[in-house]
Amino acid sequence: MLLKENIPVRYVLGKIKKEVIVVTIYSILVAILYRNFHFSQISIPIAVPTIVGTVLSLLLAFRSNQAYDRWWEARTLWGAIVNDSRTLGRQILSFVDDPYGGEEVEKFQERFIKRQMAWSYSLGQSLRKISPFIGTEGLLNREEIEFARRYSNKPVALLELHAADLRLALKRGWINEYQQVQLDRTLTNLCDAMGGCERIKNTVFPVTYSLYTHFSLIVFISMLPFGLIEYFGIMEIPLVIAIASLLLLIEKMSIHLQDPFENKPTDTPVTTIAKTIERDLTQMLKQSHLVEETKRLESATKAEYYIL
Amino acid sequence: MLLKENIPVRYVLGKIKKEVIVVTIYSILVAILYRNFHFSQISIPIAVPTIVGTVLSLLLAFRSNQAYDRWWEARTLWGAIVNDSRTLGRQILSFVDDPYGGEEVEKFQERFIKRQMAWSYSLGQSLRKISPFIGTEGLLNREEIEFARRYSNKPVALLELHAADLRLALKRGWINEYQQVQLDRTLTNLCDAMGGCERIKNTVFPVTYSLYTHFSLIVFISMLPFGLIEYFGIMEIPLVIAIASLLLLIEKMSIHLQDPFENKPTDTPVTTIAKTIERDLTQMLKQSHLVEETKRLESATKAEYYIL
Amino acid sequence: MLLKENIPVRYVLGKIKKEVIVVTIYSILVAILYRNFHFSQISIPIAVPTIVGTVLSLLLAFRSNQAYDRWWEARTLWGAIVNDSRTLGRQILSFVDDPYGGEEVEKFQERFIKRQMAWSYSLGQSLRKISPFIGTEGLLNREEIEFARRYSNKPVALLELHAADLRLALKRGWINEYQQVQLDRTLTNLCDAMGGCERIKNTVFPVTYSLYTHFSLIVFISMLPFGLIEYFGIMEIPLVIAIASLLLLIEKMSIHLQDPFENKPTDTPVTTIAKTIERDLTQMLKQSHLVEETKRLESATKAEYYIL
Amino acid sequence: MLLKENIPVRYVLGKIKKEVIVVTIYSILVAILYRNFHFSQISIPIAVPTIVGTVLSLLLAFRSNQAYDRWWEARTLWGAIVNDSRTLGRQILSFVDDPYGGEEVEKFQERFIKRQMAWSYSLGQSLRKISPFIGTEGLLNREEIEFARRYSNKPVALLELHAADLRLALKRGWINEYQQVQLDRTLTNLCDAMGGCERIKNTVFPVTYSLYTHFSLIVFISMLPFGLIEYFGIMEIPLVIAIASLLLLIEKMSIHLQDPFENKPTDTPVTTIAKTIERDLTQMLKQSHLVEETKRLESATKAEYYIL
Amino acid sequence: MLLKENIPVRYVLGKIKKEVIVVTIYSILVAILYRNFHFSQISIPIAVPTIVGTVLSLLLAFRSNQAYDRWWEARTLWGAIVNDSRTLGRQILSFVDDPYGGEEVEKFQERFIKRQMAWSYSLGQSLRKISPFIGTEGLLNREEIEFARRYSNKPVALLELHAADLRLALKRGWINEYQQVQLDRTLTNLCDAMGGCERIKNTVFPVTYSLYTHFSLIVFISMLPFGLIEYFGIMEIPLVIAIASLLLLIEKMSIHLQDPFENKPTDTPVTTIAKTIERDLTQMLKQSHLVEETKRLESATKAEYYIL
Repeated sequence: MLLKENIPVRYVLGKIKKEVIVVTIYSILVAILYRNFHFSQISIPIAVPTIVGTVLSLLLAFRSNQAYDRWWEARTLWGAIVNDSRTLGRQILSFVDDPYGGEEVEKFQERFIKRQMAWSYSLGQSLRKISPFIGTEGLLNREEIEFARRYSNKPVALLELHAADLRLALKRGWINEYQQVQLDRTLTNLCDAMGGCERIKNTVFPVTYSLYTHFSLIVFISMLPFGLIEYFGIMEIPLVIAIASLLLLIEKMSIHLQDPFENKPTDTPVTTIAKTIERDLTQMLKQSHLVEETKRLESATKAEYYIL
Repeated sequence: MLLKENIPVRYVLGKIKKEVIVVTIYSILVAILYRNFHFSQISIPIAVPTIVGTVLSLLLAFRSNQAYDRWWEARTLWGAIVNDSRTLGRQILSFVDDPYGGEEVEKFQERFIKRQMAWSYSLGQSLRKISPFIGTEGLLNREEIEFARRYSNKPVALLELHAADLRLALKRGWINEYQQVQLDRTLTNLCDAMGGCERIKNTVFPVTYSLYTHFSLIVFISMLPFGLIEYFGIMEIPLVIAIASLLLLIEKMSIHLQDPFENKPTDTPVTTIAKTIERDLTQMLKQSHLVEETKRLESATKAEYYIL
Repeated sequence: MLLKENIPVRYVLGKIKKEVIVVTIYSILVAILYRNFHFSQISIPIAVPTIVGTVLSLLLAFRSNQAYDRWWEARTLWGAIVNDSRTLGRQILSFVDDPYGGEEVEKFQERFIKRQMAWSYSLGQSLRKISPFIGTEGLLNREEIEFARRYSNKPVALLELHAADLRLALKRGWINEYQQVQLDRTLTNLCDAMGGCERIKNTVFPVTYSLYTHFSLIVFISMLPFGLIEYFGIMEIPLVIAIASLLLLIEKMSIHLQDPFENKPTDTPVTTIAKTIERDLTQMLKQSHLVEETKRLESATKAEYYIL
Repeated sequence: MLLKENIPVRYVLGKIKKEVIVVTIYSILVAILYRNFHFSQISIPIAVPTIVGTVLSLLLAFRSNQAYDRWWEARTLWGAIVNDSRTLGRQILSFVDDPYGGEEVEKFQERFIKRQMAWSYSLGQSLRKISPFIGTEGLLNREEIEFARRYSNKPVALLELHAADLRLALKRGWINEYQQVQLDRTLTNLCDAMGGCERIKNTVFPVTYSLYTHFSLIVFISMLPFGLIEYFGIMEIPLVIAIASLLLLIEKMSIHLQDPFENKPTDTPVTTIAKTIERDLTQMLKQSHLVEETKRLESATKAEYYIL
Repeated sequence: MLLKENIPVRYVLGKIKKEVIVVTIYSILVAILYRNFHFSQISIPIAVPTIVGTVLSLLLAFRSNQAYDRWWEARTLWGAIVNDSRTLGRQILSFVDDPYGGEEVEKFQERFIKRQMAWSYSLGQSLRKISPFIGTEGLLNREEIEFARRYSNKPVALLELHAADLRLALKRGWINEYQQVQLDRTLTNLCDAMGGCERIKNTVFPVTYSLYTHFSLIVFISMLPFGLIEYFGIMEIPLVIAIASLLLLIEKMSIHLQDPFENKPTDTPVTTIAKTIERDLTQMLKQSHLVEETKRLESATKAEYYIL
């Protein structure tokens, strides 16, 4: 199961600590100016920040929506990876068959399905730019690792091995021609999901939009104390801090959601999902991998807790 | 047919009882302060809450849309499960054929189709984290239940049994190779729908957004009485309660819609849908399962009425 | 062709007659109070209804969008039914072939294609909860009707008959194994479209949203005369009526769009679409069904004109 | 290549000529009333038109989005037609093969591919309700035209001929059974795209929404001069004309986008797209159809230039 | 990996240099008029530009969303091209097999996969209207280039060659009939992605919307100094410049995003993606193309850096 632990409030606020301190000092300065030096002209009608606020809403709404869509698409792609891994496991176990019985087929099935578990781990980790073979001990044999080393993109290499194994199975008569094509289709689905994740990883959110949003946020917050000082006096300070924090948090949120494979606690939980895949496929193989699983669980725990 | 009974107003209001009481006391306090102690300065221009209101609209609109999308996707996935179950039933009955006649094929068909009914029930119940085999009495035989126990994810186990049966049917010559592949494709669709439900179940809505929405809601409601007191006097109290209730209800609504498998009355009606599947498949099998159906209906009624 | 006749304005306004009368009386009362009793304090600043108006816009926009999406999805599903019916007709005519010639195949094709026409009618009518076999005279034979009676869901029964016929055709050698699978895929598409329509029919739009929208509409309209009276005097009355009618109509519109299979003139034009299917498939069969078509056209006219 | 010529500004403005004249006269009248007769009370606070303006924005935004979606879907469907036509051409040329060589197969391929070109033209033209065979001279032989005449829907007839030819090719052994099914799938895609276009053509945009938008537009423009007169005096006239033109143009724009097959210069460029298909398929056939192409280009030019 | 280098701020601002200068002069003029000639009547209430601002937000939001969708769709299509190229490579290597061994098959595989690399380059370059064969040296042989020259659309020609090669492979017995159909499906996917890119390239964004947006932007900026002058005095100048720049940048951003194949630095990075494809496919072929790759990298660098 994926973790549902919430992000601690302290973690959230930590992200905007610096900005909040600046805003606090700024709004206090404005209040002092207004009170002690009787600069009553510095007050501006609230309607003026409202114009900037409208543009800002427009930008933040646009930003939030697109960032959420990227995040949800990333999650959906990993959901598809779960589905296709299970489908692959099911097909390997129910399609591959040696008419003369024999242990060789069972070994083939085990090797294939374990490689699929390794594929899930290696995809998640290469998206996060960490060593793709961490956590795959016991799932890949030495030849497979050797083969994958020659590729820049390790998961592509593992799919190649899948395909080569299907070719072998066809030649030996373990699967028929339709089954090969159908299994290849499942590989194509895995390849598409992988490509989708890489697309999200490698496509920056239009930078200019980010800049504009940030810029209009600064303009808006700068104006805010002047708009509120007349009616609230000293009470303007907490108000400005509250509104500014809110807007800064929404911006930060978008920034995190839009890049879901950055090895941060707010990522798509790729390791947890890979473990679900391992558990389901292992149970399909009716073998107990509990020991190794636990070991892997420990080694991967840090990069994993799933929030936002 | 799915139930169309409306949520009783009392149930709706019950959800925000506590909040409404707090708001009521708060707005009365403000009115007393204003009237009895002549604190006329506490009135603030209505334009100030309007700014917070704009941010709040932005957040609530975003929230409502994403929550609705999750809810509707969950419903669409269960609609797909209905479609694919019917397709599976149709294919099993029209594809599987013993050239030498024989009762064995009929038994095979019945076992397969009943297992599909059981799959629907068990998926709905394991999503709701309740015992997955409630309501499947008479649909699964002992071996099948035994087999499924060894899996963490019971519906995955039942799909495995489906696939194993297809392999058997191919070996016995009851289906041809294309038909096996086509039936396997239907299993893949079921597997995808199941994975989609699990994705919605296991992916929390970005917690920070929920926090921001709630926080800005509190700020907005806190300001409201001060903005209205000048023009409405004592009439401010019902107004504040009305506006606050409205906004609190929209928030509550989103919270319910966004998690559609929580065993609450506002869930996706998984049990009702599973019963529709059972009814259609049973009629396909041209057998009367009325007694058991009724029994199941009773045992499942509580967790079921479908609202919002 | 589908009808493009517009909804008469009278019909539109008829839907909100009661509400408009209440609003008229209410705004007149406010005007009298203001003029005759010099209750000038009842005027409230226009900014107050504006806040409620913002919430209302949010709700109405959300509502309109989701209702439109449901309506458009229903229309798209029926568009898919047209496509798949034509595809089924084309496949039946170009795939099914008796190597020894013979009339039997032609009868088989005619029976199959006519059953597809009947399926379209019966689906539309069972969605509208009216007798599913009206308008299918001459399209189904007695055995088929008898078979369908045993099913709660008649269109499912007809798809079963389609599948049974494909099995027969395969056994007789009229189609090959790939063609059976391909035809079965078309049946699956029809099954999916049917399930999609049932999903829209059976899933109520979240009731609480409807309630909130209606409630905030009432609050907004109640405030409106007080906001306008100061500047417009007696002219406030037509203005309030105009704005209120507009908002009430938008709400009514959403209510109609969101349930497109309710046997109302604003439905998805299922009968007209079924007739298009009948016409195209009949011309494929190169037979003149003009007489029956006309008869059916008359009997179905009432439930059909297509507006909004 | 599709034309990228812009719509001339004169054409755009021509569409709202009448409305602009009325607005001009109206705003002049208001200015005269205000100046010469000292009706200073007619001025209303700008906040009042703002309320109507909010509702109007809501409606215009909804309208624009849905209209754009229809337009873009129409364009996407025609993009799919290009893709599927190329795919069909590629498949016909690479699948169909006479093991004994022979000219007959080449003739078959030419006839099939030319019919596909004719299909594109006839679909575009029957959507625009003009004679479907204009521009198809030399692409269809007399028997094909004769066959299509018996159908109400000519493009459906041409797909029937495609399917009949595939049946012939299978019988003669020019294609194998898998290839027939694969080619039939391409026909199904063409059938789906055709059905999608017909759906957009035959489904009116909910009329009531159009009415409401237009109605609130009139209310808003009527109020505008009264809201602006106080601050701008005579300068109110150009301002009202500018704002009113803008809003009227947005409305007109939506009206054009929402019906993309009305034989207007703002249509989806179906003829240009059909020509692209003809060019690509002709080059596939490695034959020069330049003369006829030019002739067709001339005869079709009028109905074609592509703007908005 | 795709480049993630940010757009330099100077580049962004360079795009709106002219407009900003005009706005600066304009706002200075207004300030001078107001101060020196005591034209205090020229000040207008801030609520007036707010109305125009609302319409403008509506238009800009619509514009940004649709432009982003086009840009993201273009990126997604190129993501699909990566996926399908990998799939094609995998299938060619695992399906094509000569039962008698032999070098011919290996040459066939190499030729096919290199042609796929060339296809990616030529598609990207013909979308940008630059010579489609730049950078494909060593990937295509002379006959292939000769063949492609006879086509207007070079990538279509290369897909034709793919299909012809599949036909050859089937005839020689290197692939079976199902594999041909499956490989043809991959070609169809590539053809669809190509058609999608052409659709985006050749469909202008509705020009009238662009005009309206620009027009309302001008009206809004023209009004802005008059609305701000009263409260800000000389401080109005930086404010107007800031707000105007922001809005102008959002507009410019949309213009760039909406046409992602214009050979500008803000394009979809088609060359970078084509290189990723070349690298992956080359590694699949287990051959070192490093020298040529580097050469190509240099020749293509200019048209490539990927920003916004």
